[in-house]
Amino acid sequence: MQPWKTLHREVLLRHSKYLTVENHTVGLPDGSVISDWNWIVSPDFINVVAVTEDARYLCFRQVKYGIEGDTLAVVGGYLEPGEEPLVAAQRELLEETGHTAPDWSSLGTYRVDTNHGAGLAHFFLARGAQRVTEPNSDDLEEQELLQLTRAEAQAALLAGQFRGLSWATILAMALLRS
Amino acid sequence: MQPWKTLHREVLLRHSKYLTVENHTVGLPDGSVISDWNWIVSPDFINVVAVTEDARYLCFRQVKYGIEGDTLAVVGGYLEPGEEPLVAAQRELLEETGHTAPDWSSLGTYRVDTNHGAGLAHFFLARGAQRVTEPNSDDLEEQELLQLTRAEAQAALLAGQFRGLSWATILAMALLRS
Repeated sequence: MQPWKTLHREVLLRHSKYLTVENHTVGLPDGSVISDWNWIVSPDFINVVAVTEDARYLCFRQVKYGIEGDTLAVVGGYLEPGEEPLVAAQRELLEETGHTAPDWSSLGTYRVDTNHGAGLAHFFLARGAQRVTEPNSDDLEEQELLQLTRAEAQAALLAGQFRGLSWATILAMALLRS
Repeated sequence: MQPWKTLHREVLLRHSKYLTVENHTVGLPDGSVISDWNWIVSPDFINVVAVTEDARYLCFRQVKYGIEGDTLAVVGGYLEPGEEPLVAAQRELLEETGHTAPDWSSLGTYRVDTNHGAGLAHFFLARGAQRVTEPNSDDLEEQELLQLTRAEAQAALLAGQFRGLSWATILAMALLRS
């Protein structure tokens, strides 16, 4: 199978550090050309499923602008410029929950939009999490920290209560592994 | 917890049926205002995990513009204007694989970008899938239909071979349920 080729790229909109939109001219293996393929440049991000020493899953109940009503969620945030994904994951776990963990493993890296870009999601499982300080997040959303049992986390996931795509992905992957 | 309010919205870019970008002025519960919140309007889409009568998971090996190298994937596609998600799921299963199924259940609806929109993902599990015709897809990508055992599908998922976020989500959810 042959890849599609980027023949030309042009910036259509520079909105902020969270969004640049490009138009790409794309060449297909059969020789045809698509002249209006949109490409979304947004920051890569991390999510973390953190499990405490007593097997509780650290989750949030929170509001998000893109979701009507409240939702369950896991730790997450954008990478700072030049930041390694694992470093960002450890930083966000500490900021959002006041926990650190001795045991980190990757749950993979995924393209958010396989057609149009929109960044990469890097997922991590943190085991043996311990509270070391108060949460100190600069997140703008209201959120309540929850400690769910494995059964509670799985039931909430299957009931659709983790309403963001990346949260459902990482939690399902973490549960499949454990 | 109180929701954020949209105080004003303005279209910044109308690219195509696949992308409109808006700027929102957003009011937070504490009275503060964010004047440059980007909002991405892109079509809702479906994915389907289809399992055949002999317990094979219908998957693809394919190339996608947003992914370097090839990837495993599941059935998916955008909703047509006004189309119900389940109807789109059944249409895409038939078009992409030539299969129908008697037993459909929802695996939930998820916001792609909980901050900035980018459409909703509707997931379905189709059981008892049977081949009734040749695939007849208008997809532009090259793809090869695979029939994986449950163990093969789970191993490939955990090895990170389903490299798009929505594919990993739906497959993990389907495996957790079965």
